[in-house]
Amino acid sequence: MFITFEGPDGSGKTTIIEKIYRYMLDNGYDVIKTREPGGSPIAEKIRNLLLDVENDNMNSRTEALLYAASRAQHIEEKILPALNEGKIVLCDRFLLSSLAYQGFGRELGVENIRMINEFAIQDVLPDFILFFDIDPITTLKRKSLLASADRLEKEDNNFHKRVYKGYKEILKNEKNIELIDATKPVEDVFEQCIEVFKRRNVL
Amino acid sequence: MFITFEGPDGSGKTTIIEKIYRYMLDNGYDVIKTREPGGSPIAEKIRNLLLDVENDNMNSRTEALLYAASRAQHIEEKILPALNEGKIVLCDRFLLSSLAYQGFGRELGVENIRMINEFAIQDVLPDFILFFDIDPITTLKRKSLLASADRLEKEDNNFHKRVYKGYKEILKNEKNIELIDATKPVEDVFEQCIEVFKRRNVL
Repeated sequence: MFITFEGPDGSGKTTIIEKIYRYMLDNGYDVIKTREPGGSPIAEKIRNLLLDVENDNMNSRTEALLYAASRAQHIEEKILPALNEGKIVLCDRFLLSSLAYQGFGRELGVENIRMINEFAIQDVLPDFILFFDIDPITTLKRKSLLASADRLEKEDNNFHKRVYKGYKEILKNEKNIELIDATKPVEDVFEQCIEVFKRRNVL
Repeated sequence: MFITFEGPDGSGKTTIIEKIYRYMLDNGYDVIKTREPGGSPIAEKIRNLLLDVENDNMNSRTEALLYAASRAQHIEEKILPALNEGKIVLCDRFLLSSLAYQGFGRELGVENIRMINEFAIQDVLPDFILFFDIDPITTLKRKSLLASADRLEKEDNNFHKRVYKGYKEILKNEKNIELIDATKPVEDVFEQCIEVFKRRNVL
């Protein structure tokens, strides 16, 4: 079972995945959590290139290709081996992030981004996707003040607005989407996810 | 004027490009030389990932995407600015290397590799290509003994045979190819190149 978590920066995905992961471990499930970009040694090296604020003159096509490169490695080194061992895989960001961030945010065209990712992914797609729905502007105002903000988090508000609108556009044609109201407090968001996992027979 | 140099590992391209570059500088031409993968700061970081022998479990799709990523960056940061200033650009490897090495050597399909590179390159193509023709096996035997051989040079002979056959296949459909007999001594190969440059009105 392959489950991915999508949403704008600051939507709380990472916190919730950690909580779900702990909950599942405590209840004896054979589960791993991973993230993109990165998730395996070579993919993490590519992540470092992508997020390093020093690389601020990175071409947007280079960026899109690096995300796809990282994804191909992550699938082969980590996701597929885990799925083949019967594990549940929880992944923080996957294909939809590329479609929204590079296709819409960078305005490279969603079909182009789908094409290079089909080359990277082949036929490895999630069983279902949790979309953490929250307008990104409020959360970003907070995050951009942090010294730890990475290269993509530092992008301007118009970029993040395009990403959010892009996500909404993509979701219209995607199957197996579960909408999560991410404006709610952490415990509530966690409960929404647990309900989905139960309905989908993961728990 | 954008001129690329292609051929198997150990075909002597790099030595000859250096000689042509020096010759052109000495004769007052406004010329730069560059190389792939790499050629600009971010592209060189991607080059390091690609050629590091530590990354020996790199997925071949990851590899193909990294080459394309490096190329997109190299074009924007270095090749296009130089061409826009009216400079002559000499480039050690370009698109044909990806088609031959990833398309044929890694057996990923030349059309797939062309597709991801079209995304990376858009419409930046060389005015002509010098292909250094030499059977790679003899030169590789020598090179693989060197401690300095990189990850791709260490590939087995079958890989390099596929690359060479792939080049030959690609050349059938490419325009603006100039065949250079790279089995000859360095001075002779240099003279062949100079003759091409004169016929093409570069010199």
